[in-house]
Amino acid sequence: MNYAEESLKLHAGWKGKIEVVSRVPVSTKDDLSLAYTPGVAQPCLEIQKDINKSYELTRRHNLCAVITDGSAVLGLGDIGPEAGMPVMEGKCVLFKAFGNVDAFPLCVKTKDVDEFVNTVALISGSFGGINLEDISAPRCFEIERKLKERCDIPIFHDDQHGTAVITLAGMINALKVVGKKKEEVRVVTSGAGAAAISIVKLLLAAGFQHITMCDRKGAIYAGRDGLNWIKEEMAQVTNLEKRAGTLADMLVGADIFIGVSAPGTVTTEMVKTMNRDAIIFACANPTPEIFPEDAKAGGARVIATGRSDFPNQINNVLAFPGIFRGTFDVRASDINEEMKMAAAKALADLIPEEELDAEHIIPYAFDEKVGPAVAAAVAQAARDSGVARI
Amino acid sequence: MNYAEESLKLHAGWKGKIEVVSRVPVSTKDDLSLAYTPGVAQPCLEIQKDINKSYELTRRHNLCAVITDGSAVLGLGDIGPEAGMPVMEGKCVLFKAFGNVDAFPLCVKTKDVDEFVNTVALISGSFGGINLEDISAPRCFEIERKLKERCDIPIFHDDQHGTAVITLAGMINALKVVGKKKEEVRVVTSGAGAAAISIVKLLLAAGFQHITMCDRKGAIYAGRDGLNWIKEEMAQVTNLEKRAGTLADMLVGADIFIGVSAPGTVTTEMVKTMNRDAIIFACANPTPEIFPEDAKAGGARVIATGRSDFPNQINNVLAFPGIFRGTFDVRASDINEEMKMAAAKALADLIPEEELDAEHIIPYAFDEKVGPAVAAAVAQAARDSGVARI
Repeated sequence: MNYAEESLKLHAGWKGKIEVVSRVPVSTKDDLSLAYTPGVAQPCLEIQKDINKSYELTRRHNLCAVITDGSAVLGLGDIGPEAGMPVMEGKCVLFKAFGNVDAFPLCVKTKDVDEFVNTVALISGSFGGINLEDISAPRCFEIERKLKERCDIPIFHDDQHGTAVITLAGMINALKVVGKKKEEVRVVTSGAGAAAISIVKLLLAAGFQHITMCDRKGAIYAGRDGLNWIKEEMAQVTNLEKRAGTLADMLVGADIFIGVSAPGTVTTEMVKTMNRDAIIFACANPTPEIFPEDAKAGGARVIATGRSDFPNQINNVLAFPGIFRGTFDVRASDINEEMKMAAAKALADLIPEEELDAEHIIPYAFDEKVGPAVAAAVAQAARDSGVARI
Repeated sequence: MNYAEESLKLHAGWKGKIEVVSRVPVSTKDDLSLAYTPGVAQPCLEIQKDINKSYELTRRHNLCAVITDGSAVLGLGDIGPEAGMPVMEGKCVLFKAFGNVDAFPLCVKTKDVDEFVNTVALISGSFGGINLEDISAPRCFEIERKLKERCDIPIFHDDQHGTAVITLAGMINALKVVGKKKEEVRVVTSGAGAAAISIVKLLLAAGFQHITMCDRKGAIYAGRDGLNWIKEEMAQVTNLEKRAGTLADMLVGADIFIGVSAPGTVTTEMVKTMNRDAIIFACANPTPEIFPEDAKAGGARVIATGRSDFPNQINNVLAFPGIFRGTFDVRASDINEEMKMAAAKALADLIPEEELDAEHIIPYAFDEKVGPAVAAAVAQAARDSGVARI
């Protein structure tokens, strides 16, 4: 199927992928008096007295804003706020279908970090949580940090954290398949954008100890030329030996490659130089850093990609709907590292020991157990880490 | 029925009066690839090329934001952004039920005019139109004016313009009942807030010539003490004889009283001093400026209120759903005076000559002809006045 052509045709016919509907009857005078004036004054006054009642008397408890500035939409780049909206609407559709979360798409017409933050913070009282989407790095890190400081609702940047959760889930199971330990394996990433950085942070939090990140100029290490502030920050916790060199240099003897970069970055020859039973997560989409058959030819044992037509798809839809479902279920004030790790572990645990093999380390997107399992684990982790509010 | 108590109970059970749902299937891999990645890239690129396509390829064409700062909610006053949300959700329910408009509620946490304007302008690319709601005067006028300057979508403050449209509609028919001419009648208003000012402006635009506005200090005239900038402005076009005095003084010999102020402002004795066949629109809610039986005792011929339990209810639901429906149907860039007057005339025309009498000057809220009639008239007026974009 020509997805581009077919999708355009469908979008023109759909006339919007989401819709706002009413949950209450308004067919009599009394209906109007109860859902609207004069009756509605009472719920208003209750919220005025106690702002927490806004979670009980309005839709806020289940409402997530999906917000972009259009600066890094899919692989398309900075296409502008309005042009990012088909993706935002699609995301909202997935939130509803896989997590029963009401998600509403918004685009913000500014590239200024503080103006963006201020806009989102000022409307945050309308929502129970905020999902940032398709915002360019390193702006996205600053935006996320500032919003977390200003808002009393959870802020989540799915391009970062969703991807990290699923990568960690897959990695837990991949390590079981090859019989290696997270504390011992050498991990090399290609890409140092939002997703790569969040993946590395979560792997470190989960106990991985030897990670080297590569950008277009090669290995990142403290003091290297051309590092922005976030790469400087990452250089403090990765590649502590300060090895310099190309991605190919770094892969020699490595156990794991994680690509969130560009098509064709890795060759069969490079995989051959890696340690035995190499693990390759080649997530550039739609064309991966290396195709599975080429990685296998180099001796790789477990291979994951972002595509649904190969085994082991790293697909964000496995994580964000359940993460927000669990977060909303306990009205968590934050989505913290504990909750993300719980989500990753729940995803990994969905593959029973006897079904686990090199071609099946991650659940399928349409496995109906996924959403509820992730939600339950996330809610429990929220309670355990003290951010649950009910 | 105790509306307050019953409404609170219902709100707690409803858990939100609106919901965001999906309009597209996502039950197979292909569904995902078409509604989301990779297919969705194509609609994005089309919008990047031509921003008008955002009306065809996303829900924008039918989406209205209902936005408040919580500063003047119902008769409750400044109860705060979150506390205003039950009203905003209620409004969204009415938009959908009576106009098939997808409306989404937002509250903005600021009292600063420019910050509010900036916030709304920056998210305006997500919507086809914006309905401002329950914002205190005179800030609401400035907000509306500045937003109209900055945004390329229609901005409508229903508390002003919706009320004005229905008042004009009722007035057209009331004048028919009493056989008087708009150019000749003397109109006196009580109240000089958002609604009163918008009503007076629309009556002037429609051809009424003798209007005097009263606030708590009595008649407003150019140069009077204690006028804010908007009252100063109104003093340039009303009470041109610069009569000073109380509301009671102004009502002597007047033909029409329009109250959008406070309960009990007008007495039977005051009505007795008015011209024969007086018209009384006593819209303070829920307790009017004067009850219908007291107005009748003073000799009033036509009486309207904001209540559904008396004849002639001035109910905003008669106007805003159809106005936005018509606006969206032709993708109008503005909701201008011509469109508001067309809406008023369409509403008035819905009462056939033979059914028109003192107790039936305005259609019922649940009359199914209302929405479509208003929408058609508004769309036509948009075309005629050059603001229709399709």
